[in-house]
Amino acid sequence: MKVSGLGEFGLIDLLAKMIRNNGVDRLGPGRPVIGIGDDAAAWRGDAFIQLATVDTMIQDVHFSLDAITWPELGWKSLAINLSDIAAMGGVPAYALIALALPVETPVDAVAQIYEGLIKCAREFKLAIVGGNISRAPQISLTITVLGNSPENKILRRDKARSGDVIAVTGYPGSAGGGRETLMKKLDFKPKAPRYLRDAFLHPVPRIAAGRLLVKHGIAAAIDISDGLLADLRHICEASRVAARLDISRLPLHEALHTGFGEKALELALAGGEDYELLFTGSAKKIDRIKAEIDCPLTAIGEITAGEAGKIDLFNAQGNPVKIKKSGWSHF
Amino acid sequence: MKVSGLGEFGLIDLLAKMIRNNGVDRLGPGRPVIGIGDDAAAWRGDAFIQLATVDTMIQDVHFSLDAITWPELGWKSLAINLSDIAAMGGVPAYALIALALPVETPVDAVAQIYEGLIKCAREFKLAIVGGNISRAPQISLTITVLGNSPENKILRRDKARSGDVIAVTGYPGSAGGGRETLMKKLDFKPKAPRYLRDAFLHPVPRIAAGRLLVKHGIAAAIDISDGLLADLRHICEASRVAARLDISRLPLHEALHTGFGEKALELALAGGEDYELLFTGSAKKIDRIKAEIDCPLTAIGEITAGEAGKIDLFNAQGNPVKIKKSGWSHF
Repeated sequence: MKVSGLGEFGLIDLLAKMIRNNGVDRLGPGRPVIGIGDDAAAWRGDAFIQLATVDTMIQDVHFSLDAITWPELGWKSLAINLSDIAAMGGVPAYALIALALPVETPVDAVAQIYEGLIKCAREFKLAIVGGNISRAPQISLTITVLGNSPENKILRRDKARSGDVIAVTGYPGSAGGGRETLMKKLDFKPKAPRYLRDAFLHPVPRIAAGRLLVKHGIAAAIDISDGLLADLRHICEASRVAARLDISRLPLHEALHTGFGEKALELALAGGEDYELLFTGSAKKIDRIKAEIDCPLTAIGEITAGEAGKIDLFNAQGNPVKIKKSGWSHF
Repeated sequence: MKVSGLGEFGLIDLLAKMIRNNGVDRLGPGRPVIGIGDDAAAWRGDAFIQLATVDTMIQDVHFSLDAITWPELGWKSLAINLSDIAAMGGVPAYALIALALPVETPVDAVAQIYEGLIKCAREFKLAIVGGNISRAPQISLTITVLGNSPENKILRRDKARSGDVIAVTGYPGSAGGGRETLMKKLDFKPKAPRYLRDAFLHPVPRIAAGRLLVKHGIAAAIDISDGLLADLRHICEASRVAARLDISRLPLHEALHTGFGEKALELALAGGEDYELLFTGSAKKIDRIKAEIDCPLTAIGEITAGEAGKIDLFNAQGNPVKIKKSGWSHF
């Protein structure tokens, strides 16, 4: 059946039931005051620092239905918002889902999108408390996620200090590698494309890592969804500092290196859509975090007192290096 | 200049400056912890009941650039969300703006959209704390508004009781009349189309009215954005009650009546996009509210103990009446 056959209110009923049946309307920290279906969502608040972020995925701009599955679309749309909460060191709590669809979209496709959303919400223990459904020429999901900081401490872009070590979680460039693999239908060794594909289509937000950074007194962090270099520049500009990166220390996943050779470095620096955390702090703190963290963590450079926002790249021999592409912009 | 010339981060800077220069980043009830521009917005929370709602306006689905001005588009996109907060009896507090744009959109157009958003935010004293900008084939705004209830009381859909009087604010059908006027380029007397046009393109959310309902102990309310009949049915279904409406008591604005004759009634019942409040309560309470409220308020029927969701229409002579169209659906 198409959504046009079910109608707006029929579709809302179906999705609200999926959310309720999975208990996802009640996962937030506050006591829900009413269920889904009134003019607005309502829950009991708390006096912690509150966090809020919004992100959009639009068909043929941010995703192609040739590449992504419906559940992955749901998962990723929510996960990229959770990554922003992770980059603040927070705990996700509530989500509102604004879905836009052509009238001929199969109801089953919408249900599968919600399967992915629900799976992600359960994994990260946040409640889906509301949303909106509209007709549109193409599919899009705009998701708002609310979270909080039980420690009343947040990770900011403007707290990097000269002398800080720069560290990054995971393997930057993997998502970009997955995107290129899918777009160009490249043929790699069997396991490699799957890893890169998942890095691109099924990102796992670093919520636990963000919490760990707060616990260890880190003050400056960002997620590198715009690309490692572009987001490091955001930190440097906000903090009025410069940075030097040792590109030989960039942690490239074997699959990226095998598949892309020299281009792997460019993808790691500017591929974008890596929902990893980049942060800065003392070498001591970073060593302690490394001992506790449940994902790869690599020190890749230092914050310096140079011109605000300036990033210098060096190779293993300590010689300056230049690269062309430095990030990803929507326009 | 087009947004493609300014780039994503240039555009974000411009809009963030507009928000800051108008003080709109600091209008919320909680102390802001950081300004716009980090991974997520952050502010100090409170223990009141929290409210959240999201709504989308998509070019050529919800609006036409032939009819609406840029500032009106900004105003309306925010106002329709505030109407949901009004329908819960709450106070708006924070907004997040997700904007999607073709790359050839003029920067000036985006700035004008934000003028409208900022005007509405200032009028209703809420902070714009964050957002997102994406490329898209057509313009859309998806806005999330957060609010709260300082009394810890909310207006719900499931609290109508048999014997309650049904009342509605303003002049239902006016927005639908404005829409028809614009779509069909109808030519009325000079003042009438302006009133109808504004009802459609520059709706004023009934925040003060919603607050007054809470003050007077009203428990059941909804905004009639889907159309008076459809939204009354939502109340009746949620409350497991029926209703009888006296159509001769429907408050039709003179401009609607003059312009549309017999069709005015249909627009009032099912035109949609009226951001008025419909609520139920004792005749005594409604009389008290009427004495205090700063907008038209009309009793139009009664809640009865009949079949859940059933609405019977009667004319001035008490005879049953039927109408064709009963509401507006997205699909």
